[in-house]
Amino acid sequence: MSHDHKQLNISHESPAIWRVTFNNPPINLVDHGTLQELHDLTTAIDASEELKVVVFDSTDPDFFLAHWDITSVAPARPDGTPAPSWIDISLRLARAPVATIALIRGRARGMGSEIPLGFDMRFASLERAIFGQPEVGVGLVPGGGSMERLSQLAGRARALEIVLGAADFDAATAERYGWINRALPDAELNAFVTNLAQRLASFDKAALGAAKQTLNRRALPEAEDLQASQALFYKAFTWPGTAPRVKALVARGVGTRGELEMRFGDLLPTLTVTEQS
Amino acid sequence: MSHDHKQLNISHESPAIWRVTFNNPPINLVDHGTLQELHDLTTAIDASEELKVVVFDSTDPDFFLAHWDITSVAPARPDGTPAPSWIDISLRLARAPVATIALIRGRARGMGSEIPLGFDMRFASLERAIFGQPEVGVGLVPGGGSMERLSQLAGRARALEIVLGAADFDAATAERYGWINRALPDAELNAFVTNLAQRLASFDKAALGAAKQTLNRRALPEAEDLQASQALFYKAFTWPGTAPRVKALVARGVGTRGELEMRFGDLLPTLTVTEQS
Amino acid sequence: MSHDHKQLNISHESPAIWRVTFNNPPINLVDHGTLQELHDLTTAIDASEELKVVVFDSTDPDFFLAHWDITSVAPARPDGTPAPSWIDISLRLARAPVATIALIRGRARGMGSEIPLGFDMRFASLERAIFGQPEVGVGLVPGGGSMERLSQLAGRARALEIVLGAADFDAATAERYGWINRALPDAELNAFVTNLAQRLASFDKAALGAAKQTLNRRALPEAEDLQASQALFYKAFTWPGTAPRVKALVARGVGTRGELEMRFGDLLPTLTVTEQS
Repeated sequence: MSHDHKQLNISHESPAIWRVTFNNPPINLVDHGTLQELHDLTTAIDASEELKVVVFDSTDPDFFLAHWDITSVAPARPDGTPAPSWIDISLRLARAPVATIALIRGRARGMGSEIPLGFDMRFASLERAIFGQPEVGVGLVPGGGSMERLSQLAGRARALEIVLGAADFDAATAERYGWINRALPDAELNAFVTNLAQRLASFDKAALGAAKQTLNRRALPEAEDLQASQALFYKAFTWPGTAPRVKALVARGVGTRGELEMRFGDLLPTLTVTEQS
Repeated sequence: MSHDHKQLNISHESPAIWRVTFNNPPINLVDHGTLQELHDLTTAIDASEELKVVVFDSTDPDFFLAHWDITSVAPARPDGTPAPSWIDISLRLARAPVATIALIRGRARGMGSEIPLGFDMRFASLERAIFGQPEVGVGLVPGGGSMERLSQLAGRARALEIVLGAADFDAATAERYGWINRALPDAELNAFVTNLAQRLASFDKAALGAAKQTLNRRALPEAEDLQASQALFYKAFTWPGTAPRVKALVARGVGTRGELEMRFGDLLPTLTVTEQS
Repeated sequence: MSHDHKQLNISHESPAIWRVTFNNPPINLVDHGTLQELHDLTTAIDASEELKVVVFDSTDPDFFLAHWDITSVAPARPDGTPAPSWIDISLRLARAPVATIALIRGRARGMGSEIPLGFDMRFASLERAIFGQPEVGVGLVPGGGSMERLSQLAGRARALEIVLGAADFDAATAERYGWINRALPDAELNAFVTNLAQRLASFDKAALGAAKQTLNRRALPEAEDLQASQALFYKAFTWPGTAPRVKALVARGVGTRGELEMRFGDLLPTLTVTEQS
């Protein structure tokens, strides 16, 4: 995409409700550009006095957010400051006095799962949402907060199943494991989220913000844990087993609208079969 | 109600099993009188050597406990001591070497949800129980421990949905979110709880008490968190948006057996519509 | 059983996948011999460079592991070191860079539930698995980590219901409470676990180990808590109410393949009825 293309369509449905629609064809990969736009959005959220709710959805019914684009390089920044990090953005959003809601259709894998995990609530299409943390299957570890947040939401045993198994999960199982608040029939999902957003917008920002701040007291992951996981993610690219898996991903068409991206979870164990035989 | 009316019907079904039935017509509001009686009951529970189980139910199948009576004023006490607080009562009950069980039919909203959240276990009628924390919808925040306890039981995302959304939840969803242990068909609920109480009563108090004490080790909320939330609840009455909402509640018939109390969750977003238009 | 009988059948299905089958007829009781073999197995697991997954199942479709054999005495050890303890074994397994998976058919009660709770994941037969922590019903408290681990997985209210109520739970309820990852139809259980084990074995040990270590960060129980509960378990045998219950257990045929062991949960409240009347 050109530098001018915006990946986030931001619509102010009212002063109290913003809708942010991910739009990064062909499959809504997450890259440094996405993070820059999420960073800027967070600054706008913090600056707004009237905003109460932000709903995040996607233009692509097959891909909410595919996953991190492993070819993405942090752009050089004239002032020498580091590129925005999801850890900082997600902790700022978690502390913002507004409710952030993910409305999920399609695949949400890796960083594409970790971004909604950083929002306050997640509602997903029973028929069309698919969740996965495929990192371990690529020789990596999740680096965007899923280990910290799934551990809290799903408990150790289910978080280990999700992260070590690296499989795709349907929305019903994701609901049972606490990964999402609810799985709803696709035909009811939009109305449910719209209704919830309008409820929240009808309440006072002071009450919403104070309640959220209170609930944050013991419920946020530690920034140092998040940073350690992110560092481990980057370090994992140097492990001997990882390069062949990443290479196989590229050969299989990662990042394009093909079979690998549609059935990532199923295909992971076959990734290096050809290389090894 | 007269000062002599007792809101709690206490029946010693056996030395080991007490049944406490909330009875504060017309809709089982919670007020300083309720807290005084719960305080006295807790003292009796702590003093009993034979007691093993206390079951809490309600005379009113539509209202387990409606919510806090916002018109209630703490009575002057001759000795100058403060009125009993739910924080102290709930922490004493949580540490008592007996099992406390809520059998819930009808609405349990606000403090009426927070009181059973302070008990050890909660079983509810699948058809007749309704749960809500409507405080944010009235410009307040929950002050009786629900933010601390729901955060532990339901996780951050679902606790935020419950508290910020301020909606009514049916018993099946409350079970899925961990708000209650189980939702049972109404026709089976009484027998289930009676059977559980009799099981517990057949066991040794030493074992029951030691196991509960051990499970408390890492599972109780911090008293300072509970006190901070209670203080915030009282402070919220001074926020500018709150008074019009409280006034609208009164105009709509809060505390009476009418449409508002039956459908609190649904009606909350409409509370100040007339005032604003 | 003779000293030479091995309770654990250990099969190296591949260098990366070991299967450990509990085989201690007549009902798979757990005793000091089991712990010695689990201790030795853990040492072998730690020493293996190629191992990635260990699946634990049972030869007996009615008893995954019955419970602790209360007649078991720690064998004298020539070198004076203490007998292996489940606390140490379970914490070593939790930290090992391999995935441990329980495949559960039949009863898993007391220590027979606490051993799979010490593994990383648990999958159980919807029709045939039964879970219980019957200790409180025998005048004891659970001493093998279930109070610490169930408190984290199921939350305080459900952990209290499980531990104080001492009832048998079917697999569907155990799944709902987080006691197990999933309950699967019996006909699908083996294939599900085999498929998961093969997935894990196809991934890199470096990634599996690093992800597990990261997820352990805030999710392991404290060793001091586990030790305090174990000490309380042993102390409980001296409580006045406990000896008659243990005596009644023996009179009813504990440890044999009879009605008591099949219906432990249901029969617990009747244990001392004859003695008292």
